[in-house]
Amino acid sequence: MGRLSEFQEHLAQSAKQVSDTISRLIPEADGLEARLGDAMRYATLNGGKRLRPYLVRTSAQLFDVPDDRALRVAAALEMVHSYSLVHDDLPAMDDDDLRRGKPTCHIEFDEATAILAGDALLTYAFEILGHPDTHPSGEVRANLVMALASASGARGMVGGQMLDLMAEDQTLGMEQITRLQRLKTGMLIAVSCEAGAILGKAPKAAHHALSAYAHDLGLAFQIADDLLDVEGDAEVVGKKIGKDADAGKETFVSLLGVERARDQARMLVDQAIEHLAPFEARADNLRDLARFVIDRSS
Amino acid sequence: MGRLSEFQEHLAQSAKQVSDTISRLIPEADGLEARLGDAMRYATLNGGKRLRPYLVRTSAQLFDVPDDRALRVAAALEMVHSYSLVHDDLPAMDDDDLRRGKPTCHIEFDEATAILAGDALLTYAFEILGHPDTHPSGEVRANLVMALASASGARGMVGGQMLDLMAEDQTLGMEQITRLQRLKTGMLIAVSCEAGAILGKAPKAAHHALSAYAHDLGLAFQIADDLLDVEGDAEVVGKKIGKDADAGKETFVSLLGVERARDQARMLVDQAIEHLAPFEARADNLRDLARFVIDRSS
Repeated sequence: MGRLSEFQEHLAQSAKQVSDTISRLIPEADGLEARLGDAMRYATLNGGKRLRPYLVRTSAQLFDVPDDRALRVAAALEMVHSYSLVHDDLPAMDDDDLRRGKPTCHIEFDEATAILAGDALLTYAFEILGHPDTHPSGEVRANLVMALASASGARGMVGGQMLDLMAEDQTLGMEQITRLQRLKTGMLIAVSCEAGAILGKAPKAAHHALSAYAHDLGLAFQIADDLLDVEGDAEVVGKKIGKDADAGKETFVSLLGVERARDQARMLVDQAIEHLAPFEARADNLRDLARFVIDRSS
Repeated sequence: MGRLSEFQEHLAQSAKQVSDTISRLIPEADGLEARLGDAMRYATLNGGKRLRPYLVRTSAQLFDVPDDRALRVAAALEMVHSYSLVHDDLPAMDDDDLRRGKPTCHIEFDEATAILAGDALLTYAFEILGHPDTHPSGEVRANLVMALASASGARGMVGGQMLDLMAEDQTLGMEQITRLQRLKTGMLIAVSCEAGAILGKAPKAAHHALSAYAHDLGLAFQIADDLLDVEGDAEVVGKKIGKDADAGKETFVSLLGVERARDQARMLVDQAIEHLAPFEARADNLRDLARFVIDRSS
């Protein structure tokens, strides 16, 4: 078994544990409002790769954080990622019917339920981080809350989504695309690594190394996503292909061309891996993840 | 000047301070995504009465909490209230064009911007609570986060909104309406008082007394709202009147009739005030607020 397929096995195993945790955390509601819990579960228990949770757990391991704590934070991060997809797929936003090969939340349920399920997932993520089960220190919990909120709010992910909407009528250059993607996807990826460091009360230098790794990884991830949108197989990718071009959106690939975009992604992965040097062999899982990010087919 | 109009003056003064705080906290964004910050400001700086912020500050005063801390928490609570209105007004939800006499957020901007502005306000509320400026103790900050998330998520406000949507095709009895309103509006009102107690590290008994006060107050507030929907003047109330009846929704008034509903609200206010006995004269502002809630015209 090659190193990549070995890693994929490892990632799939982690994804399963994360799904089990999410399933335990989201209440199987009853009563008239049970539909809300159903939609929350539908939006999160959908066979995603769980890259962000993997980053949380693997970063946390560098500092010997007990895995049950890391799993709670991983689940919270994944809930925020999932809520952003649910809202992003809405008719007023990207208007997508398909996500990971299945009907999007507002298609499976309805728009109102999808809006509320997204709101509830976002809210619940903070409830999980604030809870003593996540870490005995209130300081650590409050720091996790602040880091996640700052990465996913107006100056982070939501700001990036706004920028993305505004960019539809604009011609963006490399610098603007890079900023857009850093906000829209990069910061949530970065905070996944930072969360591990916060949980582990890591020294500043380790914190910074992980953060630098994550920022390069995030950008490489986005370029790989753009490449999949151009070259991927819709059935494997699990969503519509070519939609960036159809929407007239500039991407790294439309700006750089396929070859240079692929080179750029490789360079970023090398750079990401270099940042991990201080952790020596302990960070091998993070190195494998970085390589996987540009070699994946979905 | 009568006691009620004196109180209204006091409330208006507090509302202004809360607006100033919100205005300071929400960044006047620039860049292509500035529209997001504009929508966040539009949704929050709209001349609301700021009842929830008033509850936070007045409860916090009982425990000698510095007002700058209470104001941050008050602003966070109001952001959550505002986000819920923005999402609630969306076409897929209540489809309202008018709020406090002005175009709703998605009318003034557009649906996508309104969805994102709501998301950003909710996220920002938790960032504010998690920040050391809110309280030097991480434990207190994490407790504030947990309390707010739990009151406003799937088992609180968002759950109530889901219940409200599902109830449109149902005939609800008193017990179900009471539960719906407790979730939809009561819990955010209750957590406003609880936040003051958390900030002030109040003893358990004081915490419970305030919580009991807030739950009665929340229900009285909702009945008063239902009465205004039947009897109010659209121009004074600042939103469409009679919309519950138009939507075929059961309310306290449709179930009890105007007279018994008004009696019920008065009884709840008396009961709310009784819970404040342990605080003696220090809680007079909270007593006045309870009386105001059923005597207001908007």
